[in-house]
Amino acid sequence: MKKKGKYLVSPNLTDKSLTKNISGFDENFRPLKTTVIQEKSLTIFLNNQEIVTLMSIGDYPKYLAIGYLLNQNMLKKNDKIMKIEYDKELNVIVIRTRRKTNYEKKLQKKITTSGCAVGTIFGDIYDEIIKKIIKSKRKINHSWIYEISKKINLTPSLYLKAGAVHGCAIIERNVPLIYMEDVGRHNAVDKIAGYMFLKNIKTSNKIFYTTGRLTSEMVIKTVKMGIPILISRSGFTSWGVELAKKTNLTLIGRAKGKKFIVLSGEQRIEYRK
Amino acid sequence: MKKKGKYLVSPNLTDKSLTKNISGFDENFRPLKTTVIQEKSLTIFLNNQEIVTLMSIGDYPKYLAIGYLLNQNMLKKNDKIMKIEYDKELNVIVIRTRRKTNYEKKLQKKITTSGCAVGTIFGDIYDEIIKKIIKSKRKINHSWIYEISKKINLTPSLYLKAGAVHGCAIIERNVPLIYMEDVGRHNAVDKIAGYMFLKNIKTSNKIFYTTGRLTSEMVIKTVKMGIPILISRSGFTSWGVELAKKTNLTLIGRAKGKKFIVLSGEQRIEYRK
Repeated sequence: MKKKGKYLVSPNLTDKSLTKNISGFDENFRPLKTTVIQEKSLTIFLNNQEIVTLMSIGDYPKYLAIGYLLNQNMLKKNDKIMKIEYDKELNVIVIRTRRKTNYEKKLQKKITTSGCAVGTIFGDIYDEIIKKIIKSKRKINHSWIYEISKKINLTPSLYLKAGAVHGCAIIERNVPLIYMEDVGRHNAVDKIAGYMFLKNIKTSNKIFYTTGRLTSEMVIKTVKMGIPILISRSGFTSWGVELAKKTNLTLIGRAKGKKFIVLSGEQRIEYRK
Repeated sequence: MKKKGKYLVSPNLTDKSLTKNISGFDENFRPLKTTVIQEKSLTIFLNNQEIVTLMSIGDYPKYLAIGYLLNQNMLKKNDKIMKIEYDKELNVIVIRTRRKTNYEKKLQKKITTSGCAVGTIFGDIYDEIIKKIIKSKRKINHSWIYEISKKINLTPSLYLKAGAVHGCAIIERNVPLIYMEDVGRHNAVDKIAGYMFLKNIKTSNKIFYTTGRLTSEMVIKTVKMGIPILISRSGFTSWGVELAKKTNLTLIGRAKGKKFIVLSGEQRIEYRK
C-alpha cells in the first residue's frame, strides 16, 4: 500500500508559499532572519451558497473544504460530489454536489447556540455524537504509543521549520500514514477527514494523534470520523473526557516519552510486551 | 496601588469548580487520579438579544461577557452599562446598556465573512484595526522581558495544576498586575479587556503577555485595547507580524529564558542595562 516510512500525504516542506522569511532582531539587538508560517484565507462555497471564510496555511484546500463540510454535517457521507473548483487567485473553493441543500437555517442556528469560541457548530452535532458508541474492538499495544509519538516528532514538519502550527496524524498499528499541520488545529483535523473521505480510507482500525489539547471538539471530530483511539501529548478538559466516556472512545493524553495517561476506553490498551 | 507581588486579579486556585479530579490509568496500568480543567458554557445576552454561547472555565463571567462584547465591537467604550445579571444555575449573563442596539445585521455578517475558524468577527474589526496606529512612546528594557516571563511562569496557576489552559497577563514596567487563564486564549484576553474596562485601567503604559501564539487575532485584540507591547513565549504567524507592523505594535515572540525575537516596533526596546 505504501513505501516504508513514507506518508500517504503530509505537508509539502518544499512549498515556499507555506512560510515566509521575516527580518527582525534578537535579544542583543542583532539583526536576524526568521521563518514564520503564512496564513491565507479560504472561502468555501457549497453549490451556490457561501458557507465560511477561514484562515489556513493554504495547503490542500480541497481536503480542507470537504473535511470542513463533513464535520459540520453539511456534506453527508453518501453525497455525490460532482465537481470541485478551486480558484487560487481568489482563495475560493466551490464544492458541487448532486443533492441541493440550503443551509440558511443551519447557519442561523450556529449563531445562537455556539460561537467562534467553540470552533464548531455545537448544537446538533453534539446531540448526534452522544448517541454514537464506538464499537471497534481494535487494540493498541502500550509500547506503540511511545513509538508513534517518537516517529511523529522526528518527521520533518512546518512546526520544526517555523513553529506556530498544530499537527495531526492518522496511524495504523504503530505506523503514521497521514500527517497534516495548520495554524488552526480544527483545520488540520478537517484536512485529514477530507482526505480519508475522498480516498475512501477505513477509519475503524486507525489511531488519531494530535499535538493539541483533548477538548470536546477534538473528541467530537474523532468520534465523527469513526476512529476508536485518540492520543495527544497535551492535556485533557473535563468535557473532552466526559464525551469520550459516553462514546466509548479511548482517550490517551500527556503522552511524553514513555509516559501517558488514559482516562477513557482503557480496555483497548494491551499492556503485554 | 497594590501590595508587593500580589495580582489585582488572577485565577482563584481555591475555587473547586474550576478543576475536577478524574480516575484513570498510567503507562503501567496503575490506577491514578489526575486533575483536569472544567469547561462550562456561558450564554451572553446584550439587552434582549442572545449574542453567543461560549465554552469557558467559568471564572469571572462578568469580565468575560463585557470583554467579549467590547472586542466584538458590540459594546462601545462610551456605552453606559445599567445592569449586569448573572444566573449561575443557567450559565446565562445579561448585560443591559442605556443605548439599545440590534445586532442581527452584524451577526449576519459574521456568518459570511468569517467563521469559527478565525475566533473573531474578522470583517469590520480588521478594517477598523488597520487604520489604527499605536502612538505610545513607552519603552521596555530588554531585561524586563526575561523578568516578566519568569514571574509569570512562577505564578501558581491552573496551568501548573491541571494543564490545558492558556494564560494572559497585563504588566506595568516589569510587574505583572492582572493574570487570567482559560481553555480558549481569546476568553483569557476578553476577561482581561473586561476587567480593565470596568476598572478604568490605563492601557497605553502596559505590556501584554500571552502563552499563546502571536496570530492576527492576538494582535487585533492588543491593538484594540490600546496596549503598545505584546510578548509571547510562542511563535509568530505572517498575518500577526504584518498587522503589528501596520499598527506600530511592538511584537516580541519566542521569549524563553533570556532569548527573544522582535519582529515589529523594535524602537520601543531599550538595550541598555
